[in-house]
Amino acid sequence: MDNFTFYNPTKIDFGTGKEQLIGQHLAEHGIRKVLLCFGSYRIKRDGLFEAVSKSLAAHDIEFIEFGSIVSNPLLSKVRDGIALARGHQVGAVLSVGGGSVLDSSKAIAAGVPYQGDVWDLFIGKADIVSALPVFSILTLAATGSEMNSGAVVTNEATKEKFAIQSVHTYPRVSIVNPALMQTVSRDYLVYSAADIIAHCIEGYFTATVQPTLHSRMVEALINTVIDTTETLLDNPADYAARAEFAWASTQALNGLIYAGTAGFSYPNHMIEHALSALFNVPHGAGLSVIMPAWMKWYHGRNPAQFQRLAQYVFGVDTPQQGIAALEAWFDKMGTPTRLSQLGIGEADLPAITDNVLGNAKWFGIADIYSRDVVATILRNAL
Amino acid sequence: MDNFTFYNPTKIDFGTGKEQLIGQHLAEHGIRKVLLCFGSYRIKRDGLFEAVSKSLAAHDIEFIEFGSIVSNPLLSKVRDGIALARGHQVGAVLSVGGGSVLDSSKAIAAGVPYQGDVWDLFIGKADIVSALPVFSILTLAATGSEMNSGAVVTNEATKEKFAIQSVHTYPRVSIVNPALMQTVSRDYLVYSAADIIAHCIEGYFTATVQPTLHSRMVEALINTVIDTTETLLDNPADYAARAEFAWASTQALNGLIYAGTAGFSYPNHMIEHALSALFNVPHGAGLSVIMPAWMKWYHGRNPAQFQRLAQYVFGVDTPQQGIAALEAWFDKMGTPTRLSQLGIGEADLPAITDNVLGNAKWFGIADIYSRDVVATILRNAL
Repeated sequence: MDNFTFYNPTKIDFGTGKEQLIGQHLAEHGIRKVLLCFGSYRIKRDGLFEAVSKSLAAHDIEFIEFGSIVSNPLLSKVRDGIALARGHQVGAVLSVGGGSVLDSSKAIAAGVPYQGDVWDLFIGKADIVSALPVFSILTLAATGSEMNSGAVVTNEATKEKFAIQSVHTYPRVSIVNPALMQTVSRDYLVYSAADIIAHCIEGYFTATVQPTLHSRMVEALINTVIDTTETLLDNPADYAARAEFAWASTQALNGLIYAGTAGFSYPNHMIEHALSALFNVPHGAGLSVIMPAWMKWYHGRNPAQFQRLAQYVFGVDTPQQGIAALEAWFDKMGTPTRLSQLGIGEADLPAITDNVLGNAKWFGIADIYSRDVVATILRNAL
Repeated sequence: MDNFTFYNPTKIDFGTGKEQLIGQHLAEHGIRKVLLCFGSYRIKRDGLFEAVSKSLAAHDIEFIEFGSIVSNPLLSKVRDGIALARGHQVGAVLSVGGGSVLDSSKAIAAGVPYQGDVWDLFIGKADIVSALPVFSILTLAATGSEMNSGAVVTNEATKEKFAIQSVHTYPRVSIVNPALMQTVSRDYLVYSAADIIAHCIEGYFTATVQPTLHSRMVEALINTVIDTTETLLDNPADYAARAEFAWASTQALNGLIYAGTAGFSYPNHMIEHALSALFNVPHGAGLSVIMPAWMKWYHGRNPAQFQRLAQYVFGVDTPQQGIAALEAWFDKMGTPTRLSQLGIGEADLPAITDNVLGNAKWFGIADIYSRDVVATILRNAL
């Protein structure tokens, strides 16, 4: 096992009705005024907004609304949020939504005390030395952002989808009420499943140091995602399945399955980020297309680990059968496995490849992912 | 899944050489003087004490030695530590040792600011409202105390082995260097394996709400403990196995495999605490005796979960075969499975039963564990 430091100070308040405690959590941290970030008006329709307002009012906490944050959240919007937060001198950022809202909230929180342009923090021009405290109420389980310090934002001018990470951007408290996720559409449920599986397998397959304990944990998570997704497609109101799905999602990216591994990279995310940046593809949908295509190219580099996936997740005999089983499962669940299903054709491949190669440097794997390799993987996905 | 709050603010600094960073960690928390708690003089013989002193000196941190803490740590010793810590006005407690040293350190840390007798905190006479910050360097992986807030101490006057738990007693930083554990004796390695397995199975079998995800995580941990124990008995210097063993131990009791479960209890610990309190049995050795005996009595209450253990850990077909396989594995590893191996005979059973019944109230399961039930379990262990 590689040397590591594990520190995750986020408090998770998990379960039914927990959104009613948000005012109390903020008050315990001495917060008097928040920027309330959200995306669609689903949260107003579903009554969540009302529950949150009520809880804030009960603790005399003022809030400034900042809505309409979109999937694959945009840098311009983050800049707007920073200006608004500064103008109102809020004491914290409260995210009510899924990963995109939460990532935007973290970026706003980091951007407020920084004197320059927030994109500097994404391109390594400046370090994050402080941030407003972030709180969240999660309405979609997928990105794991509720219990980590990362935030991914798209710079729409440069078509770059980059990330920040800092000890200052862990949410202080994240409220995860699986019942709030029952209104997630069928499509977004399976995209989310693909996203969680991607978080699990990136390290599992690419790490040069991968303890067996960690592989077993990953397999526990993937098996849970598979089982619960199937249950939820049959019965979206199954709370137990919704809860296990959500908690698996959190644990897939809270640092535990990576602590002590080494040499891992995120090639599937690197390639998918190009699809999202260029075609505004839902992140999980892009990942379910890229993963099988990447695996077909990659598996010979780590046959033992692909053998594990085959055996312990799908109960089949060979790495190839395991990859086929994953692709068949995505097909069965209804998340895309071909670029054509995303409206992307062969003519688009050069532009995607260019974007990926731009990402490769940022992802630190430009040496492996040459133009030829990326083109091969993308052709596997046609 | 049951509603839960998960919050674990301990920073784990894991890997080779990490003990050299203790001065830096203390300095980052503004600590100028510590009570340095330890047990045997193994830490002086092995050079650890010197490494720690050097690191403290490099950061101008003064330390007061407090050694000779024993296994199944004693309340009288905790009281001495509190007096010493107060006398020297230390700013923190630094534990260098295994679970007994760390549990004593937590108890001292909680006892210093409390005006009454520290045992009040164990019997619920008073709440822990503050504590000195605790730091630790772990030399034995077993109790999981390095990443939780619990501490178990024996009151030698009343023969009670009770625990405290509080948000104030999480270690701020725990250093886990598996290389420091290479000098652990063969006996203590297998006792530790039994202890970790006990932490895993108590909830796994007794919880009334036990999500499948959590069961899979538990099985990942037990399988890892089994594999790595076997490796380490063959080759104590195998760092990779030592590291996985240590990290599995931490994760077995850091709250994750219990978060969202409900209705669980610790019957094996309850019974074992009587053996430790009355006969000063090593905790893990007591547990490897009690677990199979308890399982033989209990398995009919939760056959599905015993079927899982049989299948996913031992690859056998029935609950009974699973229990037999665990007992056979303990025997093969050389940790006791019979009371007679601990020097305890049938004549001792009434006294043990009395002590267990005293514990049962504290453990909250007096309704299930009647005199007859406890006697039956103990007879299974003869």
